[in-house]
Amino acid sequence: MGYLVSVVGGGQLARMMAGPAAALNIELRALVEAAGGSAGQVIADAHVGLPADLEAMRDVTTDADVLTFEHEHIPADVLADLGEAGVNIQPSATALAAAQDKIHMREVLAAAGVPCPAWRAARTRAEIEAFGTEVGWPIIVKVPTGGYDGRGVLVLDADDSQAWQTAEEWLAMPRGEVLLEEKVEFVRELAALSARRPSGQFVAWPVVETVQIGGVCAEVLFPAELPDDARTEALQIAHRVAEALGVTGVLAVELFETADGDLFVNELAMRPHNSGHLTIEASRTSQFEQHLRAVLDLPLGATQSTAEHAVMVNLLGSSLEDPRQAYPEVLRRYPEVKVHLYGKEVRPGRKLGHVTVTGDDPERMLARARAAVALLRGDVELESKENV
Amino acid sequence: MGYLVSVVGGGQLARMMAGPAAALNIELRALVEAAGGSAGQVIADAHVGLPADLEAMRDVTTDADVLTFEHEHIPADVLADLGEAGVNIQPSATALAAAQDKIHMREVLAAAGVPCPAWRAARTRAEIEAFGTEVGWPIIVKVPTGGYDGRGVLVLDADDSQAWQTAEEWLAMPRGEVLLEEKVEFVRELAALSARRPSGQFVAWPVVETVQIGGVCAEVLFPAELPDDARTEALQIAHRVAEALGVTGVLAVELFETADGDLFVNELAMRPHNSGHLTIEASRTSQFEQHLRAVLDLPLGATQSTAEHAVMVNLLGSSLEDPRQAYPEVLRRYPEVKVHLYGKEVRPGRKLGHVTVTGDDPERMLARARAAVALLRGDVELESKENV
Repeated sequence: MGYLVSVVGGGQLARMMAGPAAALNIELRALVEAAGGSAGQVIADAHVGLPADLEAMRDVTTDADVLTFEHEHIPADVLADLGEAGVNIQPSATALAAAQDKIHMREVLAAAGVPCPAWRAARTRAEIEAFGTEVGWPIIVKVPTGGYDGRGVLVLDADDSQAWQTAEEWLAMPRGEVLLEEKVEFVRELAALSARRPSGQFVAWPVVETVQIGGVCAEVLFPAELPDDARTEALQIAHRVAEALGVTGVLAVELFETADGDLFVNELAMRPHNSGHLTIEASRTSQFEQHLRAVLDLPLGATQSTAEHAVMVNLLGSSLEDPRQAYPEVLRRYPEVKVHLYGKEVRPGRKLGHVTVTGDDPERMLARARAAVALLRGDVELESKENV
Repeated sequence: MGYLVSVVGGGQLARMMAGPAAALNIELRALVEAAGGSAGQVIADAHVGLPADLEAMRDVTTDADVLTFEHEHIPADVLADLGEAGVNIQPSATALAAAQDKIHMREVLAAAGVPCPAWRAARTRAEIEAFGTEVGWPIIVKVPTGGYDGRGVLVLDADDSQAWQTAEEWLAMPRGEVLLEEKVEFVRELAALSARRPSGQFVAWPVVETVQIGGVCAEVLFPAELPDDARTEALQIAHRVAEALGVTGVLAVELFETADGDLFVNELAMRPHNSGHLTIEASRTSQFEQHLRAVLDLPLGATQSTAEHAVMVNLLGSSLEDPRQAYPEVLRRYPEVKVHLYGKEVRPGRKLGHVTVTGDDPERMLARARAAVALLRGDVELESKENV
C-alpha cells in the first residue's frame, strides 16, 4: 500500500487534513467544487469536479490508495461504480449509506441496540399525526437525506400550520418519506469522537459537550464534565455504532443527555467533525491526522489530552468584509488563542472559522475565546481596521 | 496590509510553514527549486525558480505583502533590486547580510557586546598561524558564506597537513578570506529561539539543549536544564542579537556553554531552525506560525510550553527505500510519537524528517524517539516491509 489519499470535498474539513498529511508525508488529493475554495487554496493536488460526476471521481481516484470524504453527499451509484472498479473506499459505501440516510441510520442503530429517541418513518400526514399523538407533541421531522447544520430538520407541533406546510412539502419530495423522532428533553448535548481502522483498531477521544444554536454547533467544551458511568456509556455507544455500521475513519456521535443522565444518539458523521476541531491543540493526535491514518489502515495515534481543558468557539458569519481585518487586534489581545480561518467568503451565518483555547481555567478560556470571535465577527468596533 | 507571504526555498522549513499559514488563512507562495520537492508538494502556489534569478524573484513577489526566506543564500544584488522596487523584505537585506556572512556577523556581534569566541578574519597562512599561536591550537576555520550543516567548517591543528590543504584552498577562493575562531571547550550546546516583529515586539521560547553530530543537529531537548542566571543570560543574548542585527521573524542563536557556565554565540539563523521544530507540539505557538506572524508584523503568539518536556530526534538518511515503509511498525509501537517526514528522496545523511515526543519523562521519551527514528532509518529489521 502507498500513501495517496483522495478526499471528496473542498471545504474546511479537507483543508484541515492538509497539515497532518504534510507532516506524515501522506499525499493528499482533493476533489473540490472550486479551485479557489477552502481546500483548493491549500491542497496542491486539487481537482475541480463534483462527486456526482463519475468521470471526475474516476480521475481523482486514479492511483489513489484510498478514497475518503469530508461529507456524506456522494451518490450511491457512483460509489458502486468505483467499488466495482477496485477503488478502496473508506468508510465503505455500506457504512456511508447509514450516514447518508437518517432512516437507514435509525434502522441499523435500533438493530444494534443503540439507544435512540423514539422514531418512525412516515409517508403520510396521518402517520405523522399518529406518531405525534403517541410520543407527545411537538415532534422532530427530518428529511432523510441531504440535510446538514440544521437544514432539513423541523420542530412540528400539532397546531403549527406553517411547520405542517413544510412537512407536507417534504412528504411531496421524490423520496416521499420523512423521519419522525420524539423531541428529547435533553439537558445537554454531548459528542463522542472516535476512530476505527478497517482492520478493527478503535480509539476514542474524551467526550465533549457541544452547544448548538439553531442546529449549528457554536461551542465545544473539552472534556465534558461527566460521571464515570456516563462517560463509559458514551464510549460504549460510540464503539457499538462504529462496529454496527462498520465505520472506518473518524466517527462523531452526537448525543442527547437527559436530566436522568440517559444518553440517546441524535446524529452521527463518519468524518472529522466540528466537535473535534479542538483535538488539533488538545490531543496528541488530531482528528484530521487520525482520519488519514485510519482510512489508510495505519496504526492509530494516541488520543491522550495535551491540556486539562480546551474550548472551541465557531466563527459563524462576520460583519467584516474579511475577518482577517481583526487580526492586529485579536492576535494582540489574545496571544494564547489559536485562530483558524477557512479562507471562505463571508456570508451570513456561514462557518468561516473557529478559535481554540487550551488551559486549566475553562471559564476564563471560554470568555476569551468568545471575545476573540466577537472581534473576528465584527461585533466589537476595531481600534483600527486593516485593509486586506 | 494583506496576508500574502512569499517565501524563498523549497525545503522542509517552507513546507512546515504551510500548516500554520492555512490555519491563519495567510496565503503562502513559495519559490522552489523543483515543483515536486519538499515544499512544492504541499504548497499550492509554488513557483519554480532560483533566488539568484531576479526575474523569478520578481515573479514570486508580485502582489506579495512580504518576502521572507527559509535559507540565507540570496544574492545581495537581487535583494537590493527588489528593495528598490518596493518589495517588503523581512528580515531586511541588512539583517540577512549578517546571517549570510560569518565575518560580518562577528563584526556586528562584537560591536554589540555579544559574547563570541575569539575570532579573526584571515587572508594568509601566516595570519592563520598567528591566530592559532595566540589562542591555542586547534582552531576553527570557516568559509564566510554559503556553508551549512557543518559544510565549510574545519578543525585545524598546527601540524594537520590535510586540514591545512583545505584551509589554503578556501583562502584561494574568490573571497580570499576565512573566518578563524578559537575552539571553545564547551560542555553543551544550547539554542535560544526567539522572534521579533519589524515594529519591535520580541518573544522567546524556552532555551533548548542541542546535540550535534558532525556539525549536524541530531537531537534537541526542551527545555534545557539551566540555572536561572544562565537562562536569563541566554535570553539576553538572543534579545541583544535580534536588536543589534535588526532581525525580523524567527531568530535561532546557537550557543556554546563552557564548564564555567559561560555562554558564547556559535552560529545564528534568521528563520525557523531545526532547534525549534519541537515547538510545533511543545509550544502554544510554533516557530513556523510565529515566523509568518512576525514577518507580517502581526502581534506574536504566546510561547508558553504545552508540555513539561519535549525531545526531538532528526532522521538523517535511511537504508529504507522510503522511510514510510516503517509506518505500520513505528506508528503501532510508538503511538505517542509525532512523525514528520519532509517528502525528500533518501540520500546518505540527508535530513529526511524528525520525530517529536512530549511528556514528563524525558529519558523515556528520548529512548522512544530514538527507537522510532531507528525504525524509520532502517537500522532495525522491520517485521514486514510495506511497498510504497
